[in-house]
Amino acid sequence: MIISMRQHATKQEIDYVCERIREFGYKVHSIEGEERVVIGVIGVGDVTACLESLEATPGVERAMRISAPYKFVSKEFKQESTRIRVNGSEIGGDEFVVMAGPCSVENEKQILETAEAVAAAGAKVLRGGAFKPRTSPYDFQGLALEGLKLLAKAREATGLAIVTEVMSEGDADLVAEYADIMQVGARNMQNFALLKALGKCRRPVLLKRGMSSTIKELLMSAEYITAHGNPNVILCERGIRTFETATRNTCDIAAVPVLRELTHLPVILDPSHATGKRSLVPALCRAAVAIGADGLIVEVHPRPEKAMSDGAQSLRNEQFATMMQDLEPYIRLWKESRVAAAAV
Amino acid sequence: MIISMRQHATKQEIDYVCERIREFGYKVHSIEGEERVVIGVIGVGDVTACLESLEATPGVERAMRISAPYKFVSKEFKQESTRIRVNGSEIGGDEFVVMAGPCSVENEKQILETAEAVAAAGAKVLRGGAFKPRTSPYDFQGLALEGLKLLAKAREATGLAIVTEVMSEGDADLVAEYADIMQVGARNMQNFALLKALGKCRRPVLLKRGMSSTIKELLMSAEYITAHGNPNVILCERGIRTFETATRNTCDIAAVPVLRELTHLPVILDPSHATGKRSLVPALCRAAVAIGADGLIVEVHPRPEKAMSDGAQSLRNEQFATMMQDLEPYIRLWKESRVAAAAV
Amino acid sequence: MIISMRQHATKQEIDYVCERIREFGYKVHSIEGEERVVIGVIGVGDVTACLESLEATPGVERAMRISAPYKFVSKEFKQESTRIRVNGSEIGGDEFVVMAGPCSVENEKQILETAEAVAAAGAKVLRGGAFKPRTSPYDFQGLALEGLKLLAKAREATGLAIVTEVMSEGDADLVAEYADIMQVGARNMQNFALLKALGKCRRPVLLKRGMSSTIKELLMSAEYITAHGNPNVILCERGIRTFETATRNTCDIAAVPVLRELTHLPVILDPSHATGKRSLVPALCRAAVAIGADGLIVEVHPRPEKAMSDGAQSLRNEQFATMMQDLEPYIRLWKESRVAAAAV
Amino acid sequence: MIISMRQHATKQEIDYVCERIREFGYKVHSIEGEERVVIGVIGVGDVTACLESLEATPGVERAMRISAPYKFVSKEFKQESTRIRVNGSEIGGDEFVVMAGPCSVENEKQILETAEAVAAAGAKVLRGGAFKPRTSPYDFQGLALEGLKLLAKAREATGLAIVTEVMSEGDADLVAEYADIMQVGARNMQNFALLKALGKCRRPVLLKRGMSSTIKELLMSAEYITAHGNPNVILCERGIRTFETATRNTCDIAAVPVLRELTHLPVILDPSHATGKRSLVPALCRAAVAIGADGLIVEVHPRPEKAMSDGAQSLRNEQFATMMQDLEPYIRLWKESRVAAAAV
Repeated sequence: MIISMRQHATKQEIDYVCERIREFGYKVHSIEGEERVVIGVIGVGDVTACLESLEATPGVERAMRISAPYKFVSKEFKQESTRIRVNGSEIGGDEFVVMAGPCSVENEKQILETAEAVAAAGAKVLRGGAFKPRTSPYDFQGLALEGLKLLAKAREATGLAIVTEVMSEGDADLVAEYADIMQVGARNMQNFALLKALGKCRRPVLLKRGMSSTIKELLMSAEYITAHGNPNVILCERGIRTFETATRNTCDIAAVPVLRELTHLPVILDPSHATGKRSLVPALCRAAVAIGADGLIVEVHPRPEKAMSDGAQSLRNEQFATMMQDLEPYIRLWKESRVAAAAV
Repeated sequence: MIISMRQHATKQEIDYVCERIREFGYKVHSIEGEERVVIGVIGVGDVTACLESLEATPGVERAMRISAPYKFVSKEFKQESTRIRVNGSEIGGDEFVVMAGPCSVENEKQILETAEAVAAAGAKVLRGGAFKPRTSPYDFQGLALEGLKLLAKAREATGLAIVTEVMSEGDADLVAEYADIMQVGARNMQNFALLKALGKCRRPVLLKRGMSSTIKELLMSAEYITAHGNPNVILCERGIRTFETATRNTCDIAAVPVLRELTHLPVILDPSHATGKRSLVPALCRAAVAIGADGLIVEVHPRPEKAMSDGAQSLRNEQFATMMQDLEPYIRLWKESRVAAAAV
Repeated sequence: MIISMRQHATKQEIDYVCERIREFGYKVHSIEGEERVVIGVIGVGDVTACLESLEATPGVERAMRISAPYKFVSKEFKQESTRIRVNGSEIGGDEFVVMAGPCSVENEKQILETAEAVAAAGAKVLRGGAFKPRTSPYDFQGLALEGLKLLAKAREATGLAIVTEVMSEGDADLVAEYADIMQVGARNMQNFALLKALGKCRRPVLLKRGMSSTIKELLMSAEYITAHGNPNVILCERGIRTFETATRNTCDIAAVPVLRELTHLPVILDPSHATGKRSLVPALCRAAVAIGADGLIVEVHPRPEKAMSDGAQSLRNEQFATMMQDLEPYIRLWKESRVAAAAV
Repeated sequence: MIISMRQHATKQEIDYVCERIREFGYKVHSIEGEERVVIGVIGVGDVTACLESLEATPGVERAMRISAPYKFVSKEFKQESTRIRVNGSEIGGDEFVVMAGPCSVENEKQILETAEAVAAAGAKVLRGGAFKPRTSPYDFQGLALEGLKLLAKAREATGLAIVTEVMSEGDADLVAEYADIMQVGARNMQNFALLKALGKCRRPVLLKRGMSSTIKELLMSAEYITAHGNPNVILCERGIRTFETATRNTCDIAAVPVLRELTHLPVILDPSHATGKRSLVPALCRAAVAIGADGLIVEVHPRPEKAMSDGAQSLRNEQFATMMQDLEPYIRLWKESRVAAAAV
């Protein structure tokens, strides 16, 4: 059970609720979000009596019996899809949103050239890493602040929104100054200090699935962000780690409909990391549209053979344009089915 | 390198070729297929001299330097797609072929009812197990011969072709009497005695990927069948085993375009075993069409809640019909892209 | 629940039991073993009444309510360890039994030389493949009958028992003529036709865990063999398939104590396939003794660099001798703990 | 290639080296550690000329051609084992060091009681979490500062050293005030911001392998810490994620000898997280000693059934004492083999 307190509930009201819960024999875990306090009720046995008693208590906005271990992100909590507006686009609604751009921001020419190309081809969001999580300390670690500024420049030039990775809670405020969407990378999906910091951030979060995280764990990590105050989370399937070596990761495409059954949050797919191989990206993008993802995040680079990271999986600008054209009839079918679903 | 001997090459010709290969310092591994002898040349170093010397040798049809460890099934061996004709349909060509039916053949009513339903909905092949590989010896093991006879009856009634599993080389001849396509289950993908027996069989083979087999191993198993004389192999991705428990298996959908790059054999997808959950099947089928699979094999049962096996992942007859209708626009796009590819 | 019928129960007695079970609303799955008929009672709900009613029925030896899905192999069925006598040694008792030898039998010199070396170093069983399950059809497939004969010759020369793989139920009788222990390889762990054939075989079976099989599935496969009449099954952990590439497989060493809790069957470990690397074998053997395995199966070759298969993971004869010496103090501790356990 | 600059190399000297490297056509990645600057030379081709040219350059301490992607942690860099002194014990030397204690610090009574019990049984380090990385935001997150203070109290009372987890670079200084060893949990193994912060920390680091990290990635993460200035890293195998569900994780015990071949850093094993089941812990501890680990980290709780986390895998105090006694003869053999190895 969780209790969501009203936005301006007083300390007294909150304390009273906690006391009542303890009287019923449960434990209390309260989370202070930016806007409201959320109280998790922990314990075993039937909570009906406790729930009914608290529903009418002053300061309580909603008391919910939710069977899933994730609460705010579950379909039980909210049936209708969460729509996240970013710079004129809406993710999770009637628009199939494509994010594209290089793995790393490398220099002004590279990022502007790519931004213009992907915007012309139909992308709405520009991706590009300023802080790069690299396996080796000797690999290029990103341009940091300089990279963020170049992204902002690209936004001005093209009108694209910006999604970029934040690797540490210490950088959250800085990244939030420049980014429209804060990306949590696969390696940080269970960096709980970072997730808590993003709960207090006003920007939407793109949460990538850890490379060996279950779907349930992905939802629990999204719950960290929402329980700490930020309801705008976009989930991203980017391939999981298996024994197969023909692709960089194994794309768990069925995660898309599984998540659709469990959560109201939007779900996008990253075909570049999922496969690690440029030639496989267009086919996987078609599959992502057909299976009902809310969007894509695709690596694109003007000269992949010279990219400082992930060259092998990046489409060239013109390959991306061709792919976007080829996707059109699939996106048309996607829209029809969204309209049909809404009409029901 | 492999040497494919002519169909009626004499023993003398074959011996001469083997002797020449040994003179060049290589080892010989020859396979006697139904129709011809194939000689694998094993060893290290440059084979050019040996290849050139043998090309013109009497009895030799073709001497091929193939870098992949699989030879006959590789794109290097043959660029154009293998098309497999079964009962009026063609798998691997311009037709998207759907196979459907129950996990197990249970009784006459069940199989006939399902056969009629799936035929009416557009399936071309009826699936149904007569020999069932069950984890527990105490589970239903299939109707065996009786099941095969019921399948034959369903074929007569509907015109559908029959695909059914063969679990042992001892049953190969019996199953071949009734089946149009011989299915090798995931657990038997590396049952080499069975693969060799199917190499001598005149029926096409549907080879399911082992649940923890790599794509390369799948191709090596197909190579066993082709090297032993049967070129008609259909590959099937049916989900691999990973740490994720939300689905029965993890559908490695990217295996479809990976295989398309490596082999000329047709590739189909089994969304039922890949997910283990009825509600996920239609979405995965759309993805399979969009990504360019050659067909589907789907579990359908008139009363899944009473099925003797795999009930949770079987569509009801009417759900299958609805799904087939919903797939239509995707299959139209699929056909357009096949035509476009052929025109290039 | 399972019903084990007496050895000479009449058809009438068996039919009567089946009828009674069906009257109680359950389904019957009966298995005709070499010596007796076993009846699986399948269904849901409390079986107490049915159990009590059948216990005293003529022809019934034992009616058992066993909660595990595997019955005969479970600790619930039998508390004391199964001891399997082979050629003067006892596996599963107070002796730590080491099996050793080459991956493949290659020629007389190689197998005799190895047999003498491993016998001198303390091994009690000689391993060596006559039928080889190879991923590629172009790889050496084993000497077949000739290999079996060479193994028999080595047994005569050294007194070692022989363990060798059987790959197909068609070969079971032939292999049983020569082998003391019939090995089922990892790829065939769920080749149910083979398992059934071995249930009717008089030789003990060494059942290797499939490379992506769960412990439960391993026990279910052992149950196939025992339910079909052969109680003498030795289980073998040989590494499972994971994402890690530093070793050929990942040795799931905790499977040994897990199996000890679940089954009375002996459990041995194969450090050669588990690691794929000679240098890691001695350390893993020490761990296997310390964790309480009943024995080891180790690849040894006089000249690994020239081995026709698995050279990289084979110890040289003299390395094996050194390792056996180094294991001695660990085996002493092993014996003490077995004696202590027996005394309790 | 990497260039390790002298401790007080001037900016001029460093710049000169970087310039020379670029003249040779390579890229430079320099890392400013607490004590010295390390320069990674990135590029392809033979580095001999560059290496020779730099060896004698002012300010250069050492120029090393190291083929492994990890440099400072590799055996190529340093043959002799790294010994890490903590509070009178030495990890990585001739002592088998056992760390033990509860998953979470819960209250004063619990931690003091456990500390005294594990000290009496022979442990040298007390484990206990003050910051807990929990999958659910509603689960107990640890006592934070209060927990650290209780650990310090337990150290005073028993003389045990303290190992405790740090979850965020923001907490690194605080945790370092109280802990003798800073633990990085499995979920944070690739939290590079945290690893960099720990590179600047004066305390030894216990780095747990990520649940789906390869051995190579573990070493790369250790390289982050060492390249940023902290050479005292203890590696910990704690089980990886696989398809097997009988245990919480799969203990990759062969990682111990693999790491011994690749690195000079000490390696310990965590049998509690590796198995998730109390009854399996003693057997796995024996195996860890036998295979040559440098120590263990074991969960112990006075009343596991009331533990706020990981109760199922925690030994009771008295079970731990019994286990330590049973380990004694194995530890004696361990010491003999260390002495023998040193004598060579």
